[in-house]
Amino acid sequence: MKIRLLPAALALALLPAAVLNAPAAHADEGMWQPSQMPELGDRLRELGLRMDPASLSDLASKPLDAVISLGGCTASFVSPQGLVVTNHHCAYGNIQYNSTPERDLLAEGFVAATLADELPAAPTSRIYVTQDIRDVTGQVTQGLESMDGKARYDAIDARSKALVAECEAPGGLRCNVYDFHGGLQFSLIRQLEIQDVRLVYAPSGMIGKFGGDEDNFEWPRHTGDWAFLRAYVAPDGTPAPYSEDNVPYQPASWLTVSQQPLAEGDYVMVTGYPGRTNRYRLPGEVAETIEWRYPVLVRYFQDSLDVIERTTADDPAAALKYASTVAGYNNVLKLYQGNLDGFARMDDPVGMKQAREDELEAWLSAQGDGGAGALEAIAALEQELAEARQTRERDLWFGNVVGGGLAGTAMQLYRNAIEKEKPDAERESGYQERDAARIRGAMEALDKRFDPVVDKALMALRLQRYASQVPAGQRVAELDAWLGIDASDNTIPGLEAKLDALYAGTSLEDAAARLGWLEADRVAIEASDDPALRLAVAMMPVVLAEEAEEKARAGRIAALRPRYMQAMIDFNASQGRPVYPDANSSLRITFGTVRGYSPRDGVRTVPFTTLEGLVDKVTGEEPFASPQSQLDAIADGRGERYRMASLGDVPVNFLSDVDTTGGNSGSPTLNADGELVGLLFDGNYESLNAGWIFNPELTRSIHVDTRYMRWVMDEVDHAEHLLEEMGLPHD
Amino acid sequence: MKIRLLPAALALALLPAAVLNAPAAHADEGMWQPSQMPELGDRLRELGLRMDPASLSDLASKPLDAVISLGGCTASFVSPQGLVVTNHHCAYGNIQYNSTPERDLLAEGFVAATLADELPAAPTSRIYVTQDIRDVTGQVTQGLESMDGKARYDAIDARSKALVAECEAPGGLRCNVYDFHGGLQFSLIRQLEIQDVRLVYAPSGMIGKFGGDEDNFEWPRHTGDWAFLRAYVAPDGTPAPYSEDNVPYQPASWLTVSQQPLAEGDYVMVTGYPGRTNRYRLPGEVAETIEWRYPVLVRYFQDSLDVIERTTADDPAAALKYASTVAGYNNVLKLYQGNLDGFARMDDPVGMKQAREDELEAWLSAQGDGGAGALEAIAALEQELAEARQTRERDLWFGNVVGGGLAGTAMQLYRNAIEKEKPDAERESGYQERDAARIRGAMEALDKRFDPVVDKALMALRLQRYASQVPAGQRVAELDAWLGIDASDNTIPGLEAKLDALYAGTSLEDAAARLGWLEADRVAIEASDDPALRLAVAMMPVVLAEEAEEKARAGRIAALRPRYMQAMIDFNASQGRPVYPDANSSLRITFGTVRGYSPRDGVRTVPFTTLEGLVDKVTGEEPFASPQSQLDAIADGRGERYRMASLGDVPVNFLSDVDTTGGNSGSPTLNADGELVGLLFDGNYESLNAGWIFNPELTRSIHVDTRYMRWVMDEVDHAEHLLEEMGLPHD
Repeated sequence: MKIRLLPAALALALLPAAVLNAPAAHADEGMWQPSQMPELGDRLRELGLRMDPASLSDLASKPLDAVISLGGCTASFVSPQGLVVTNHHCAYGNIQYNSTPERDLLAEGFVAATLADELPAAPTSRIYVTQDIRDVTGQVTQGLESMDGKARYDAIDARSKALVAECEAPGGLRCNVYDFHGGLQFSLIRQLEIQDVRLVYAPSGMIGKFGGDEDNFEWPRHTGDWAFLRAYVAPDGTPAPYSEDNVPYQPASWLTVSQQPLAEGDYVMVTGYPGRTNRYRLPGEVAETIEWRYPVLVRYFQDSLDVIERTTADDPAAALKYASTVAGYNNVLKLYQGNLDGFARMDDPVGMKQAREDELEAWLSAQGDGGAGALEAIAALEQELAEARQTRERDLWFGNVVGGGLAGTAMQLYRNAIEKEKPDAERESGYQERDAARIRGAMEALDKRFDPVVDKALMALRLQRYASQVPAGQRVAELDAWLGIDASDNTIPGLEAKLDALYAGTSLEDAAARLGWLEADRVAIEASDDPALRLAVAMMPVVLAEEAEEKARAGRIAALRPRYMQAMIDFNASQGRPVYPDANSSLRITFGTVRGYSPRDGVRTVPFTTLEGLVDKVTGEEPFASPQSQLDAIADGRGERYRMASLGDVPVNFLSDVDTTGGNSGSPTLNADGELVGLLFDGNYESLNAGWIFNPELTRSIHVDTRYMRWVMDEVDHAEHLLEEMGLPHD
Repeated sequence: MKIRLLPAALALALLPAAVLNAPAAHADEGMWQPSQMPELGDRLRELGLRMDPASLSDLASKPLDAVISLGGCTASFVSPQGLVVTNHHCAYGNIQYNSTPERDLLAEGFVAATLADELPAAPTSRIYVTQDIRDVTGQVTQGLESMDGKARYDAIDARSKALVAECEAPGGLRCNVYDFHGGLQFSLIRQLEIQDVRLVYAPSGMIGKFGGDEDNFEWPRHTGDWAFLRAYVAPDGTPAPYSEDNVPYQPASWLTVSQQPLAEGDYVMVTGYPGRTNRYRLPGEVAETIEWRYPVLVRYFQDSLDVIERTTADDPAAALKYASTVAGYNNVLKLYQGNLDGFARMDDPVGMKQAREDELEAWLSAQGDGGAGALEAIAALEQELAEARQTRERDLWFGNVVGGGLAGTAMQLYRNAIEKEKPDAERESGYQERDAARIRGAMEALDKRFDPVVDKALMALRLQRYASQVPAGQRVAELDAWLGIDASDNTIPGLEAKLDALYAGTSLEDAAARLGWLEADRVAIEASDDPALRLAVAMMPVVLAEEAEEKARAGRIAALRPRYMQAMIDFNASQGRPVYPDANSSLRITFGTVRGYSPRDGVRTVPFTTLEGLVDKVTGEEPFASPQSQLDAIADGRGERYRMASLGDVPVNFLSDVDTTGGNSGSPTLNADGELVGLLFDGNYESLNAGWIFNPELTRSIHVDTRYMRWVMDEVDHAEHLLEEMGLPHD
């Protein structure tokens, strides 16, 4: 399971995104912009593509217009009636939302027999259908040179918002401005925003999550990581919130599920929305990650998981509420640890980055006056980044305290009230009119993922980290005062009583109260004696001041990083190397072949797993339990049509060398004819630090084979009507 | 590391050996008698053999006459000056014998610069050169039919001893009668017994034992498991005990070390002395092994290791004395556990055996009168085996108490005195004149492997097992009386004081005293007040009575198992399947190809490992530490001539599908031209239960590649003079 979204406070703590990759000595590395596909035509054909490469640039035709975003995951249309396939772990929240202790769909699975049986997904669920990508670099960057940091940040922000507002004016649309190459290029992406999403089919967790956290990021793998949703719209075809009157959305295109055999060495490509890579970070940024950030986060997530385990041990209802959080934390934990293991496997990753930096700077120096400006910009960028690191402990731990759980909810309510006082265009991103429904949905749904006992224990953990980890020079006086920290030993006397009072006194655990406060104005909130809101009111000035500082720095960096990236692009161009931008959640295409790797000397992976191998793993205990109906179907040898001749068995999962990352989860894997052969759902353990450094020998993506999906639908879950909807034969 | 010899008491507890394999559907399964090679000629040539298969039947010419036994391990001559190569773990006792805390050859390694520097091996070290194999079935079995069990056993024993005595009469020879197919065939094997063995070269344990117990039975593997010995004889060429005047033995043949490349798929064969397999045990024997014997032994060896670890924790000298015992116990522990894991991987191993049994019996029934006798014999054999199981707890635990450590030494001294009263030909095997030197050597060398504190703790463990595990009906009254067992709860009150008195009062911890008692007569020992000898005198009547019972049963079984095996041979012959006898420590040949396997779905092993892979494993901590000189040689890329082109590196270890077992350790691995390409030193974990059931998909042998051996000798250990002695070029 790939990362979907980082918890908000931690995402904030990560540095701003989007640097670009360059040394594509292995052409198969790369998350390419669709517009770049024609220039890659030779390599695509060499690997086996049978389509016109230009057809992979066209957002308005198949296959790209069938590829959709769930916001954090990728999916695709697979029928003219808006049927959507994605990963089980991407639909996990929706399955969980419809589960109760009495009817646990995560355990039992779910097949809607008819449209009427399809279940409404969580209210914040969305399906985004990309309609257009437009270059707006000129509009965003014109005249920025003369501005100072804060002015530059504000100008980029205001211009982006204006573009978004104009774009979204017709309604039913979601528009975003994406920066590429660290702000060298800006694109306005327009997406249809479908608001009525329903759960159609999910296999049992014993199939969809087979192997669980133990197998997460591992090969060999036997996970049936798929689920089906359906997009609904108003009878007139426009996006609308859930209504019984809504009808299935009819997409212009949908993917064809392949009935051709897929074999080792075959061409495959993945189209989707990879979230973030850091392939062109400066050496100092890499060093900080290895030496400080990831080790610190590993400990924090491990401790958070321990807290959740301890506080939900005797409370199955609370455990169910935190199942999704636990899965997410385990996932990022393994991600960060895998990064550290990957870096440790390398001789000297910081040295590698430094060597590349030295190479670039030597090339720039050789350019004479032409390179001098870039060299200055790089030095200035390094200076800015070093300064930012001066407050990293405060940024991480204070951000966590005010960003998570009850405190985060209170902060969000108060901030909402503050922003509402401004004209919509001037409001902070996330608090504009266009965000209102999402915020409201989150406030409504909180109960499903919140338990006061667990949340209080997590809050205590965060506060203790803040108290013990943030050094004197970075301390937040307002929070220290609220906590009554003992400065002599950085302990918090009476923390438990303080938190008991906070949680006992707040009304925010009540959904109606939250929705009420969402409508309240700033004065009302500032006058409230709800202790959670009192905390938010006390902390908000600090947050806003820090935010202003951060924006000013971001504005200064916005003048520097594009120049660094332009230098990188020029340097690579001088060596004839094409360049793709770092992942930024926008639509990308990556391609390669079905292929194993050598995890260690004397061992090679085979790129397909089998039903027989699945049975070998079955212990009968989670996460290695299988439904009896599945074991019977395997024992009976059912589903001859799904077998792969060379394997003598049904292929379950497969490996390829395509270049993917978190956000790609659920992406369609297409063959040389653009037909669906699998769903990307994970990378191998060795790929975990590919976000920073791509290793073509070891980095592999893991896909669930559509032959296994069809076999389960046909022989185990009896979802024959969905196979028919996709135009597929069945037994 | 394969098993070398089981601790004596446990070997006794295992049932008598030698049953045959039959269903050789995969011709590559099989430990063939040299005489069988011509009939396998087609298959040998098909796999790539370039020699005349008949030349593999000739014991008097190369390569077979260069293959020698160390008694428990195999070795081979590799120079005209009696230079011998075997495994490091086979020479381990000799390296340990020459080690002291001040000069630890196990850690440092050892290279004798000249003949004069070569070190005398442990006094019991022998090299056996097979000279002749003669069928003596008629002489051994004539007229046995009419005898009862005890008489039959005694007749076989007496006739075998007479054959051996006649054979050994010229002196300097070791002869043994081996039974094949459970006593259907007897061979007299004559071997030259070389008594002066010297240590020539052993790499550091960081090479020879790299990976240690952690990697034992595992692939991928990077162990440099070789050592060199030299055979010395008197100046007249006859075997003689160690003397400064002795000269290197000049063998008629010696193996040529290959300078041809060896690659995946190439023909290889292994010639050596596999100890024991159980491929044609009856279902009841397999069931007992799985359900009782191996689980019980796993617990016992684990507990014994814990005792040794605890009692040597603060005593490095004692730890060194038990290093070899610990290695051996760890090895059998993994062997038994691996067997159990292998059986657990199978659906129903006992059922498989039962199905084969049913098939045989159905075939016999279909033969009418011709099969009736065999069916009766099988039923009677099953009955005998079931009866033997009635005393299995007593046989195991009482056998262990009187067979190990101080008690075992006392028993051996007393038994020696008893046997000496008889004419030599009537003495029990192991106590004849021909055994005298070996017993004396063991009595002398005991100090090097014995510590009273450790031995006492192990004795306590065995006594507690006896007390708690042997049920009432099987109890030994004499031992119960000596121990003063509390029958109400099977505890031994005052055990510690009893053992303190035993160990404080005995003189047997003194080598001179032991050698004195070895010369004493029965009356003197029975009159002794040495408490260890008193214990031996008290237990001996029980041992002798049990032995007589066991011999009578063995005699009855000797009339039954050959009929069972003849039926098996006839049954297989009716289906055109050649049959090889179960391993019995006699010279065998097994052949196959260099080949990987799939340990689990989605993974395949590569059959060669590399220096680069070795470096990847190095942690700097035992057992994954390497000498700095080796790491430097790798980093410098030294030894171009030893590289394998397809690998781009020096091959370290390789896998093949030849069929080997304990006793094969140190066996030469030969290529299609009979040249030395490796040394067999282990099997993969999946091969562990191949002693009972051979699985052609999973069973693999592990060899050290001679290219790695030569690379280390040339680039790390600077044993260039030995390379020259073998006629090999070097850098």
